[in-house]
Amino acid sequence: MGIFQSLMKQRRSIREYKEKDVPISVIRELIADACEAPSAGNRQPWGFIVISNRELIGRLSEESKKNLLEDMKVIRSPILRMYRPVLKNPDFNVFYNAPCLVYITGPTVVHSVPADCSLAAAYFMFSAAERGLGTCWVDLGAYIKDETLLDEIGLPKDYRIMAPIIVGYPKTIPARPPRNEPRILKIVT
Amino acid sequence: MGIFQSLMKQRRSIREYKEKDVPISVIRELIADACEAPSAGNRQPWGFIVISNRELIGRLSEESKKNLLEDMKVIRSPILRMYRPVLKNPDFNVFYNAPCLVYITGPTVVHSVPADCSLAAAYFMFSAAERGLGTCWVDLGAYIKDETLLDEIGLPKDYRIMAPIIVGYPKTIPARPPRNEPRILKIVT
Repeated sequence: MGIFQSLMKQRRSIREYKEKDVPISVIRELIADACEAPSAGNRQPWGFIVISNRELIGRLSEESKKNLLEDMKVIRSPILRMYRPVLKNPDFNVFYNAPCLVYITGPTVVHSVPADCSLAAAYFMFSAAERGLGTCWVDLGAYIKDETLLDEIGLPKDYRIMAPIIVGYPKTIPARPPRNEPRILKIVT
Repeated sequence: MGIFQSLMKQRRSIREYKEKDVPISVIRELIADACEAPSAGNRQPWGFIVISNRELIGRLSEESKKNLLEDMKVIRSPILRMYRPVLKNPDFNVFYNAPCLVYITGPTVVHSVPADCSLAAAYFMFSAAERGLGTCWVDLGAYIKDETLLDEIGLPKDYRIMAPIIVGYPKTIPARPPRNEPRILKIVT
């Protein structure tokens, strides 16, 4: 088995974490690796926000849940609807009580930010897996609108949150979720 | 150095390829690895199109260049403008004469497609790097509008191209392009 195959096996989306905090120095290493991702025109449009404070992570969870439930009234997304019951549960923390949350963000005007920040997120998650850390990309935690909170986390007004990634030491590593057969639409030779 | 660090060093964006073709069986392996990427709600919304035909790749390059030059008349993007001189060069192939092009695509209505397909692209490119293959995400090759061409490559009407990735055997492996210092906007402890 190649090194990438073994790394892929190490990386699972982790939703149960030990109490143990992740040192900020380690988070800085993950961010440094994330910045090695390729980006359109090598513009590296990413900016990182590190929240290693459970109280603030809890408030961000509440804010995101509230906004998602509001959005559901107008957006008909089957995936959002799937999450409605958990979002209505006051005990549910969208960040799964992880000790650390990293927002990968980028300027709203930069067309390539979704792709660039997603590649940076992939690098970040592999770098964490290699260090025995667990991560999970929690899209449910991206919906922060309250200006005071946005100010508190230091998101510039012209930036948007692309990838909310939780980090911590895994309590358990789940099995690989099932995958569909690859969908190859066409091969032209 | 960890395995991920060495894999990161192996993966560079490759823009010069040997004449040698990539067997379709190898492309299928890369696609299988790409499908191991995490996706929102494990929906795996990706569909792959493989074009291992230089004549068709050339026509896709011409079509994308034409549409990008049209778009530039109305979209004021500094990154697009940067590419204007090369796009006007009739000898420039946006796919750098690579022997194979893989389009990672997904349903337009699925909100998470940009993130999901970008993660799949990261997996695809690492899987290729591990096999000594070169890749490059060529956003300039995504702008296909001609209905006959879209039909020829088998893109469903309700799908969009997210990641055009070229694949081949590298002629040369360039040095790591410079990276900025990581931009950490805020750390809250």
